[in-house]
Amino acid sequence: MITKLFRNAAIFTPVDSGSPKAGPRQGAVHVLDRGALLCRNGLVEAVGPEEDVLRRLASTGHDKDIDQEINLQGRCVIPGFVDPHTHLCFVVAREKEFSLRLQGVEYLEVLRQGGGILSTVRSVRETDEWALYEATYRRAMTALGLGTTTVEIKSGYGLDTATELKMLRVIGRLGRETPLDVVPTFMGAHAVPEEYRNRGDAYVDHVIHEMLPAVAAQGIARFCDVFCEKGVFSVEQSRRILKAAQAEGLGAKIHADEVHDLGGAALAAEIRAVSAEHLLTAREENLRAMARAGTIAVVLPATAYSLRKPFAPVRTMIDLGVPVALATDANPGSSYTESMPFVFGLAVLMMGLSVEEALVAATLNAAYAVGTAARVGSLDAGKQADFVVLDGETPAVIAYHAGVNPIVQVYKKGEKCTP
Amino acid sequence: MITKLFRNAAIFTPVDSGSPKAGPRQGAVHVLDRGALLCRNGLVEAVGPEEDVLRRLASTGHDKDIDQEINLQGRCVIPGFVDPHTHLCFVVAREKEFSLRLQGVEYLEVLRQGGGILSTVRSVRETDEWALYEATYRRAMTALGLGTTTVEIKSGYGLDTATELKMLRVIGRLGRETPLDVVPTFMGAHAVPEEYRNRGDAYVDHVIHEMLPAVAAQGIARFCDVFCEKGVFSVEQSRRILKAAQAEGLGAKIHADEVHDLGGAALAAEIRAVSAEHLLTAREENLRAMARAGTIAVVLPATAYSLRKPFAPVRTMIDLGVPVALATDANPGSSYTESMPFVFGLAVLMMGLSVEEALVAATLNAAYAVGTAARVGSLDAGKQADFVVLDGETPAVIAYHAGVNPIVQVYKKGEKCTP
Ligand SMILES: [Zn+2]
Ligand SMILES: [Zn+2]
Repeated sequence: MITKLFRNAAIFTPVDSGSPKAGPRQGAVHVLDRGALLCRNGLVEAVGPEEDVLRRLASTGHDKDIDQEINLQGRCVIPGFVDPHTHLCFVVAREKEFSLRLQGVEYLEVLRQGGGILSTVRSVRETDEWALYEATYRRAMTALGLGTTTVEIKSGYGLDTATELKMLRVIGRLGRETPLDVVPTFMGAHAVPEEYRNRGDAYVDHVIHEMLPAVAAQGIARFCDVFCEKGVFSVEQSRRILKAAQAEGLGAKIHADEVHDLGGAALAAEIRAVSAEHLLTAREENLRAMARAGTIAVVLPATAYSLRKPFAPVRTMIDLGVPVALATDANPGSSYTESMPFVFGLAVLMMGLSVEEALVAATLNAAYAVGTAARVGSLDAGKQADFVVLDGETPAVIAYHAGVNPIVQVYKKGEKCTP
Repeated sequence: MITKLFRNAAIFTPVDSGSPKAGPRQGAVHVLDRGALLCRNGLVEAVGPEEDVLRRLASTGHDKDIDQEINLQGRCVIPGFVDPHTHLCFVVAREKEFSLRLQGVEYLEVLRQGGGILSTVRSVRETDEWALYEATYRRAMTALGLGTTTVEIKSGYGLDTATELKMLRVIGRLGRETPLDVVPTFMGAHAVPEEYRNRGDAYVDHVIHEMLPAVAAQGIARFCDVFCEKGVFSVEQSRRILKAAQAEGLGAKIHADEVHDLGGAALAAEIRAVSAEHLLTAREENLRAMARAGTIAVVLPATAYSLRKPFAPVRTMIDLGVPVALATDANPGSSYTESMPFVFGLAVLMMGLSVEEALVAATLNAAYAVGTAARVGSLDAGKQADFVVLDGETPAVIAYHAGVNPIVQVYKKGEKCTP
């Protein structure tokens, strides 16, 4: 039993009332000007005004059990970031393709030059498991240093059973061998592989009858995700895959309505997906359906930034009652960033979220989006003591001190992860 | 004599032909796919294709003199960033004011609540020189870690002779006691201090007849800058101050046409200021005048980002032949960032500069903007060996790997500054 008392902290934490925060509750944050956090064996034992926590400790005689007392000197403490949407498991960056895109070269031309997602698939297939782990590990440590304590990572650069399983093993190992909580998502339907060119339905059958059962049998994925987009997977194909996944016990996620409004948001609501991602072009009626179904909108501002596109209509989403979460979308093509602080800044300054809304989106709602809210996403008694100490007085410093890592210290289960 | 050979680097450096780059030359960058950089006693001795450098070394017998050989493994090398516009010398951040601004509170109301620039002036006046040095030092080290090897720092939070001199001493000491090259700018005309409220002309007289001579006598500033803006200093007042400064041997800079187009850009051209800053609202004819005068436009994308304003019209500037430089504008009010990589990313993705144009803007043109191009801003024989090793193959990685420090190593005068 190790007991630590963190004192003199300005604690900002979403209020977890058992469901993702939506509408006017999107920004519901509990503020403790001079707060204390008592942590026992990696879990939050108590959190509250410093005075109250100290009084309670003294009255129960537990003040003698404190192994370590840390004075945070008025600095702001928030829950560790939960990044609920990444494709961190890959080998080679695609810097050249980024430059071509800046020069106005079309994506189809990039593909013709051997770039695009299928180039990542080739390299991930060719790379052995150890090297893939190394590359993914490095990026995950970058994310941890930037305050991410829980990260979802998708497969989807294998597109064959063996490589998808290899990716999911790497992702799982990352969760066991690093301080990070890692949520593995199977995304065999990320693209149609070269072997199945022009035979999308056959590939969907392959995903459903080969890959999914193999993944489910090994129990190495928690969610299944599909890239529902014109020229990739249709709404009908996505429905088939996600229903099959649900039948195997996986939660459903869907990349929906990013470039074309196919109605992916409506599908997400229909099948009660835990989240729908991107949603740049989703229709209002379908967002309403998501609100009714409680499906979380995972918005990805760094992707819009990197692709020089308009940002997702988050204010509309909030007005309609859709719970909003924020994620990096970290991937080598459209959004190469591991930084939740950067995404937070974009959400506030470019998308117009309030600081409190962005905080809930990057912690509690994100935790709901990856099914870990019972353990993380807010600083409540019984949850893990995953938190971040900021170099400022409020979470606003994340947007205010732009382009600079605003984090002084990252704690995971009460243990310091940063130097 | 210490001689170091840096091998196997992808070197990208602006071509310095003796003047700032403008128009179609804004993006003129020399690329060495497999380059080498020979550095002797902190200066660049040779830079070129690895083969050529090695052959020349062998043929002159100098290959035996190499003390250290560093293989950069194909990584990209660029000149260290020159940040030509900062207000880094202050004590207290203004996080609360940032939050109020996000909530839509007007700047006048912020001032009424004791915020704004005059609150920074109060704290800088009250802080002793040692503590002011400490606070400034910390931020300068952040900048260095993000690849800035030369930084301009303005006074202007004193607004009385004693405090302005205190700031300039702190700024000067930073240049002597850190690896950074520091360019000091006197900015007594940053705002009208409380003691002179409604007596702007009297303050201008004070700046000209008291402060400027004191600053000039001590030789502790290289440039003089004025905030020319409605409600601050008029074009006529700015002209008087800057001409007096030029008579004292200081170079002229001017914060011009940020909120209102007063014609500050025209004044900059008229008096042959080395640079004009901000320029969000400058008229085309005045930009043309700047182009003819060779006055550099120092643009500050992080300020527009933080204030949620449109970005400066850099493409127009480039089309008109105005040389463009990039800077952070680091200050506690409108742009709290020390990160040139962040500014570089915004310039490319939000303002539409090409990677090469942004590179020239953040190095060579910035060096011209602070009068240091003879020593820094490009990797040419005879200049200082100030450079940055990037975690990528080209400078595009700075924009591509968004929100993450893209820097592996910073070298100042051939010495490693980073762990
Ligand atoms: Zn994605
Ligand atoms: Zn300024």
